[in-house]
Amino acid sequence: MAYIELGNDIPGIRGLLAYRPQTAQPLGELAEVLLRGDNTLSRGERELIAAYVSQLNECEYCAGSHGATAAAQLPGGAAQVRQVLAGTGAAGPAAAPLSGKLQALLDIAGLVQLGGRMVTQEAVAKARDAGATDVEIHDTVLIAAVFCMFNRYVDGLGTSVPDDPAQYVASAEHLIRHGYTVPR
Amino acid sequence: MAYIELGNDIPGIRGLLAYRPQTAQPLGELAEVLLRGDNTLSRGERELIAAYVSQLNECEYCAGSHGATAAAQLPGGAAQVRQVLAGTGAAGPAAAPLSGKLQALLDIAGLVQLGGRMVTQEAVAKARDAGATDVEIHDTVLIAAVFCMFNRYVDGLGTSVPDDPAQYVASAEHLIRHGYTVPR
Repeated sequence: MAYIELGNDIPGIRGLLAYRPQTAQPLGELAEVLLRGDNTLSRGERELIAAYVSQLNECEYCAGSHGATAAAQLPGGAAQVRQVLAGTGAAGPAAAPLSGKLQALLDIAGLVQLGGRMVTQEAVAKARDAGATDVEIHDTVLIAAVFCMFNRYVDGLGTSVPDDPAQYVASAEHLIRHGYTVPR
Repeated sequence: MAYIELGNDIPGIRGLLAYRPQTAQPLGELAEVLLRGDNTLSRGERELIAAYVSQLNECEYCAGSHGATAAAQLPGGAAQVRQVLAGTGAAGPAAAPLSGKLQALLDIAGLVQLGGRMVTQEAVAKARDAGATDVEIHDTVLIAAVFCMFNRYVDGLGTSVPDDPAQYVASAEHLIRHGYTVPR
């Protein structure tokens, strides 16, 4: 049960989007452009950044949903996603089989999750040294910031999670096919 | 100097919006709908929530910009905004001359700033008892969450602040007249 009367029993953000179409529209467009628009970061890599930040924010719905969407689009699949989401430091991304660039971008995303002022010129330089472009660094910071929003939106209104985690996989298939844009 | 080469020297988020028009579009629409769209919360009240969260996130640019925009639209003006932004607890909103409803909504916004899971059914019930509608509670949570994003975006990329704080007032006048939507 969400903290407000949504008039629907759809879990996670989808119940909120149905409740308030005025804000659903730009939120859907933002996710579509950032996670699926033309980019030198693959869709799987961008979903992994989203899932990682959601895990750090302990947002079960978003970590489950974007973790499944990342798993379906990354060569390393669900095993790779599980390793990244397993924790921070030795148990988390640093131990996962990732390129140096994606590793450095996940490090930046983790700093953004702590707070905008936690990101340093050094962390950015490290990503650049590992081959990241300025646009990739920009998009990583914005994806991490956007999920600090989505996670707070979903949990701040006390939305429910699916009864069956298999629903995340079904929902990922739907997202990969149809995208995030909410029809006007 | 921002952490990436923006190709412009515009302070704060405006430099980022100019750098990446693809994401500027939905970000502008989101701010427009939330802060200026039809709502039973006044534009000044919504800007105050935005400024309060930005202050808690120590985002100088957003607190200055939205504080000035709130001050220009609230009956209590700059003095009221200063009182709200002065701190939390006894030194902050609780000591400022605000309606019980706005006080309770700012309390919810402060919890969202800490994390989505910090918001409680009790904080929501308190706002409802003070006269807040479900849509007002929804929009407060989303405004607070959205500024946890904007603040991280602005500071996470190391953008600059205006040399002269009077620029926030000029920029507020422009926003009040023209809004947040970025022309397509």
